[in-house]
Amino acid sequence: MKKSVSTALAALMVAVALPAAAQFQKTEDAIEYRQGAFFVMGQHFGRIGAMANGKAPFDAKAAVDNAEIVATLAKLPWAAFGEGTDKGHGTKAKPEIWKEQDKFKAAAIKMQDETGKLLVAAKTGDLAQLKTAFGSTAQTCKACHDDFRSK
Amino acid sequence: MKKSVSTALAALMVAVALPAAAQFQKTEDAIEYRQGAFFVMGQHFGRIGAMANGKAPFDAKAAVDNAEIVATLAKLPWAAFGEGTDKGHGTKAKPEIWKEQDKFKAAAIKMQDETGKLLVAAKTGDLAQLKTAFGSTAQTCKACHDDFRSK
Repeated sequence: MKKSVSTALAALMVAVALPAAAQFQKTEDAIEYRQGAFFVMGQHFGRIGAMANGKAPFDAKAAVDNAEIVATLAKLPWAAFGEGTDKGHGTKAKPEIWKEQDKFKAAAIKMQDETGKLLVAAKTGDLAQLKTAFGSTAQTCKACHDDFRSK
Repeated sequence: MKKSVSTALAALMVAVALPAAAQFQKTEDAIEYRQGAFFVMGQHFGRIGAMANGKAPFDAKAAVDNAEIVATLAKLPWAAFGEGTDKGHGTKAKPEIWKEQDKFKAAAIKMQDETGKLLVAAKTGDLAQLKTAFGSTAQTCKACHDDFRSK
């Protein structure tokens, strides 16, 4: 029973995370959208990373602000990986995204999950917890880039 | 007294809306960041517009979801208009942004204010209110584009 609830939840999350690609009028729009969402997210994630890695002073309020933006943006790019958006606008998306949809979706969900935990960690105001959560989240970025993004 | 509170509030809002441009490591990053934030925001704003203009069926839940993203993203681009970010990465930013800082900041605040009202309107679930708020918000986009963005 527990497993079927969990499976149903996973299916729901995929549905939430990957709505109709038809939301974009043009392929180029979808690609520019996901690139923009990733770039903005990356900038804010990097600011948390600077604090986590001691390259910037720890500012608990800034960590929360940045983590909120990261968690919000983490939900967005996935809808823009519809069929036919594998080429154009300088995309680095690998064909594996569409060949290994289940693996890609699982990676997308994992990343969103970790950014949620990152926000929770930021809200504790504890730098040690922020560091741990930053590391876990960064691993999900790297794993997805390794598998699904060209250099 | 009322005026001075309002002025202090406006100053605070500018401070919140336009934090240190030093957050970006490179000029190109700042420009790509603001372009990305505007593009993602524009896509979600456009989905509300489609409902407001009868080109898509009204979906109250989708309107709120999109308005929340718009309101969040509306706060972001302004920090990326620091000195020296007037050229590069295909920016359409006009020199007036830096020549008329007060006017630009006021336009930025006005837009954020309207996106806040748009979210409130979306949450009423009333299409008529959404249409009105969409129109007011769209005017702030247009006003700023007319004055500060090249064609």
